[in-house]
Amino acid sequence: MKAVQYQQVGTKPVVVEVPKPEPGPGQVLLRVTAAGMCHSDLEVMSWSADQSPFELPLVLGHEGVGTVAELGPGVRGVTEGESVAVYGPWGCGVCRNCAQGKENYCTRNEELDIRPPGLGRPGAMAEYLLVDDVRHLVPLDGLDPVQAAPLTDAGLTPYHAIKRSVPKLVGGSTAVVIGAGGLGHLAVQILRATTAARVIALDLTDEKLELARKVGAHEVARSDESAPARIRELTGGLGADVVLDFVGIAPTVKLAAQSVAIAGDITIVGIGGAPLPVGFGLLPYEVSVASPYWGSRSELIEVLDLARSGALRAHVETFGLDETPEVYERLRAGEITGRAVIVP
Amino acid sequence: MKAVQYQQVGTKPVVVEVPKPEPGPGQVLLRVTAAGMCHSDLEVMSWSADQSPFELPLVLGHEGVGTVAELGPGVRGVTEGESVAVYGPWGCGVCRNCAQGKENYCTRNEELDIRPPGLGRPGAMAEYLLVDDVRHLVPLDGLDPVQAAPLTDAGLTPYHAIKRSVPKLVGGSTAVVIGAGGLGHLAVQILRATTAARVIALDLTDEKLELARKVGAHEVARSDESAPARIRELTGGLGADVVLDFVGIAPTVKLAAQSVAIAGDITIVGIGGAPLPVGFGLLPYEVSVASPYWGSRSELIEVLDLARSGALRAHVETFGLDETPEVYERLRAGEITGRAVIVP
Amino acid sequence: MKAVQYQQVGTKPVVVEVPKPEPGPGQVLLRVTAAGMCHSDLEVMSWSADQSPFELPLVLGHEGVGTVAELGPGVRGVTEGESVAVYGPWGCGVCRNCAQGKENYCTRNEELDIRPPGLGRPGAMAEYLLVDDVRHLVPLDGLDPVQAAPLTDAGLTPYHAIKRSVPKLVGGSTAVVIGAGGLGHLAVQILRATTAARVIALDLTDEKLELARKVGAHEVARSDESAPARIRELTGGLGADVVLDFVGIAPTVKLAAQSVAIAGDITIVGIGGAPLPVGFGLLPYEVSVASPYWGSRSELIEVLDLARSGALRAHVETFGLDETPEVYERLRAGEITGRAVIVP
Amino acid sequence: MKAVQYQQVGTKPVVVEVPKPEPGPGQVLLRVTAAGMCHSDLEVMSWSADQSPFELPLVLGHEGVGTVAELGPGVRGVTEGESVAVYGPWGCGVCRNCAQGKENYCTRNEELDIRPPGLGRPGAMAEYLLVDDVRHLVPLDGLDPVQAAPLTDAGLTPYHAIKRSVPKLVGGSTAVVIGAGGLGHLAVQILRATTAARVIALDLTDEKLELARKVGAHEVARSDESAPARIRELTGGLGADVVLDFVGIAPTVKLAAQSVAIAGDITIVGIGGAPLPVGFGLLPYEVSVASPYWGSRSELIEVLDLARSGALRAHVETFGLDETPEVYERLRAGEITGRAVIVP
Repeated sequence: MKAVQYQQVGTKPVVVEVPKPEPGPGQVLLRVTAAGMCHSDLEVMSWSADQSPFELPLVLGHEGVGTVAELGPGVRGVTEGESVAVYGPWGCGVCRNCAQGKENYCTRNEELDIRPPGLGRPGAMAEYLLVDDVRHLVPLDGLDPVQAAPLTDAGLTPYHAIKRSVPKLVGGSTAVVIGAGGLGHLAVQILRATTAARVIALDLTDEKLELARKVGAHEVARSDESAPARIRELTGGLGADVVLDFVGIAPTVKLAAQSVAIAGDITIVGIGGAPLPVGFGLLPYEVSVASPYWGSRSELIEVLDLARSGALRAHVETFGLDETPEVYERLRAGEITGRAVIVP
Repeated sequence: MKAVQYQQVGTKPVVVEVPKPEPGPGQVLLRVTAAGMCHSDLEVMSWSADQSPFELPLVLGHEGVGTVAELGPGVRGVTEGESVAVYGPWGCGVCRNCAQGKENYCTRNEELDIRPPGLGRPGAMAEYLLVDDVRHLVPLDGLDPVQAAPLTDAGLTPYHAIKRSVPKLVGGSTAVVIGAGGLGHLAVQILRATTAARVIALDLTDEKLELARKVGAHEVARSDESAPARIRELTGGLGADVVLDFVGIAPTVKLAAQSVAIAGDITIVGIGGAPLPVGFGLLPYEVSVASPYWGSRSELIEVLDLARSGALRAHVETFGLDETPEVYERLRAGEITGRAVIVP
Repeated sequence: MKAVQYQQVGTKPVVVEVPKPEPGPGQVLLRVTAAGMCHSDLEVMSWSADQSPFELPLVLGHEGVGTVAELGPGVRGVTEGESVAVYGPWGCGVCRNCAQGKENYCTRNEELDIRPPGLGRPGAMAEYLLVDDVRHLVPLDGLDPVQAAPLTDAGLTPYHAIKRSVPKLVGGSTAVVIGAGGLGHLAVQILRATTAARVIALDLTDEKLELARKVGAHEVARSDESAPARIRELTGGLGADVVLDFVGIAPTVKLAAQSVAIAGDITIVGIGGAPLPVGFGLLPYEVSVASPYWGSRSELIEVLDLARSGALRAHVETFGLDETPEVYERLRAGEITGRAVIVP
Repeated sequence: MKAVQYQQVGTKPVVVEVPKPEPGPGQVLLRVTAAGMCHSDLEVMSWSADQSPFELPLVLGHEGVGTVAELGPGVRGVTEGESVAVYGPWGCGVCRNCAQGKENYCTRNEELDIRPPGLGRPGAMAEYLLVDDVRHLVPLDGLDPVQAAPLTDAGLTPYHAIKRSVPKLVGGSTAVVIGAGGLGHLAVQILRATTAARVIALDLTDEKLELARKVGAHEVARSDESAPARIRELTGGLGADVVLDFVGIAPTVKLAAQSVAIAGDITIVGIGGAPLPVGFGLLPYEVSVASPYWGSRSELIEVLDLARSGALRAHVETFGLDETPEVYERLRAGEITGRAVIVP
């Protein structure tokens, strides 16, 4: 079958022919119908050989959707031909976190060498995808595969990040979204659909701010040095109850710190890696700062349900498998609006 | 000053002249700008002398809004002329529940003979209202008094009832509202504005169902014996995660029991008093059944914030103080659409 | 292999020879080291042919512990010889409840004909037990199998019941345990080990009350008509924040209703099936009444951790497989103190 | 009356004669029976004139207990002669945080110039203390005043800090307490009394570690560079679910970061002010870091209830009012074991 492989450090991904996988006991083979392309793929391909925890070559793609092509021995709960989305952050299924469906926080994945498809295991940018266990599948139940694919990461990640703050997003509360791109434009929609918060979206370009407003932001503003004052003004001086930073670089974490209210939340989703200093007197009292990763199995079910109801809609552009290497170049160049989805 | 008094058991309320109150230490006098009329007033006036815990005569009205007319000694935090809503379920302010602002569940109000305005203390259907403490006031901050008055009970009560179920109202969840009247039509709006739930509204008349749909219900249906099957159908057989019963009579609590999902919530807000039997095997596993009362101080702040944002709008009809006795008759006859608000 | 079978309605269980099972893909075969005996087994054997959802003959035992004897194809995460406890309420592993490890509330188990061992599938009162999936195993990690077996139900069930009330069991709170038997004596210990609640245990005999006090109850009292007054007295008139009823018959649910505080919890764990009527005015405001079933996968991990720390200790009596039919008779006659555990 | 005053920057506190205050409307005068001495008093007295937000001279003491001596006009809910503790972090009582009893996070205290006794308003190190509102009093109900005084800050602050982590402190969890001094030795007791956590206490001296063990720590260790490895060892490599840092200096926040588990909490209570950098990749996934301040009104009620039950006991040394200046010197020199309490 055809697959998009990242073959060695310093090279571009290529479309190659690889053997079609066979499902072993408990495994499920999917015929891929959509695979989302993520900035973190570029991040992975920028790592040196020393940094990378993955063996190469690697078939890319951690946002996968497909139809069930073949069931390994002992599998039940799905039927051939069924359309399903893949929960990506695979864990052991057994540890105390996995036992709650929080496989993104599996405590044994390193020990057992378990990795997500496209981030260590062969990914979804291929004609077929081998899934290790039926529990990693969620039925689409009528949802468009092209819509569903980006929701498995670009939808699930903000959904999870927002969920930790739900008790603070009551009537009269304010949430700030920094970065109205792939994840951010979905975060705005999730906040509107699931909470009472007034949503303020910040970004650097008019185009992104217009998108944010179009998908439901009550207010938009430039994410520059004037933003904290603007947020204080809009909140009667109190600051925002929740700040979600989808960038995570020095200027954005500083903006978050300057904009948050007493006892608010700052959630750093962006993988920029800039440090936000926390300690007594450094932020308003009891601001909780955390940097989560992806989401849980039940949260993916909830995100797809939300999309099916019409409350959530990813902005996507579709491409064929053969175009993938070139689309990665366009993504790197900032030429992709919304999310690029590969349709094999 | 003029006031609407319920003078003795078995009589209709009358408009009378009573002395204008004087604020003592810590008290605040309001000039009333709006007072909501509630079905529970009719309930109170239906009690026999034996049943009633209130001394008569009683000035009616437990949904009050006004402007600050006079401050008693020692009051600070509000200024004369400021427009405020009154938090009605007064408590001692000191017990373990009041210490969290849950004065609706004060543990010492009987011992200290503390009662809400209009339900034991002189109420808001008068030119002036004496409020016992500044903590029972919430600034309107631009909100229309006529809108705000019904929100202090008909808005706050469903807001509180819904809040207990927020963790269950995730993406893909379903909430059923039984009774789309005064509280129910606000409940639909609160569910839409604050949660991801799909909302199914049930009532007996086309007019109420149309109102429910207009204010945001995704689905509407007759609250008759076919309703449970319809709800199972709409939820893939699972039932509703949350059922809010704003009636509380035998057919509605039965409907709630037949419509709820495993581990769901049934919240009986209606004061019908019909018993829903709970025990092992009588309902799906771990359905939580509760019957709350009114709401907390911070929840009233949140409700008014929500209304100010435009997410919540009570359907009201306004009347003068002199018309009040007649309007109670119309309310009893079912001739009031939405909420009647008295504007002195 | 030897197994204890319930063969047909109206008969006593018997020890018979049955084929040793073979693990298929994803399955695990355990050599049983301990199996707890539960009152609900007697309940199951009291059902008429019409009432029973189970096919007969049935190997009994839903509290199982063993060592891994054989791994089916594709299993990883456990090793041969490892000592493990079995999570009993098997579910599909995939639905929205199973995705959070709440397999006790699986939404698809009936459709897929999935049942717990000993309650539909062959149970643990045998030399070997076939477990359908590795996710249903929790490593004992040094814990005594005889101790662990009863904890999988008689420990997990009260742990889960208590967990729903943790936010109410703060400093100064009171919890009442009705029924200090198999589950109740563990509930007392779990309350002491995991919450700040003062614990009041109620039962009918001095022996049970003595056991309750020995395992940590602060107060004990007869569960008769004087109990509510005693509880009001001990709580300054407020009533108990949480009442756990491990019996569930008419007098105990009435006692619960009379003893609970405003906004408290009543949790009916006992399978007596008596109805507690809930509605406006029938209980103190916002008392939440629910009847849960068993517990979740992560809660079983937590219970076993708690036992390993020494905070939880089941009172057990051990017997051989051949004695099982006779021990069921003694259980029925009320002659077993604590929990009977079968050691094959 | 006699009072301990901090008169001007750069001087020692002195015992002086000041006028006995008169209670105005809504106020309560207490005859002080115990006043706790806190390290933060030394911090306040170390500030330069530029840094200090307080007007001088200032009567010290923010941990106060007394008997009601006189009620201002309009006060009800307490009676003369009643023994009460003072909730210290006074707020406006009306804003959205105060409406939940979280006056420690009042949003209007600066605007309205509201300050705690001993930290801006005249404090408890005097014969009499003027309390601004009855809601700031909690009845001792038999509790020893000398015990109660330190609990109003040294007990309430760790109680509040621990409460945010209660959902993570389940069976099998681990909590680390860094600093087993005034607040830390109470934190160990609160963890033991209110959660299932295994408690590991860290400090620099044998004496403090012995105290920690005596009050209930399961494990103790030096808070040096070997501590993180020891904590990993004790937690099977996972790290601690919750780390409470009662110091807040560079080495302790680093230790916290190195010891915490995925999705754990780090709570910095100590006012050392050292920054802990948070961001993607800088800590295990979704570790939540926050630095809270004092606690809420209902939490103080809970702490005193807990102490009354015997679960909480402050180690105190008592002194007379005249000794206070000298005792501050001993506190600065590290010569006070546990908490110094002034008994006027």
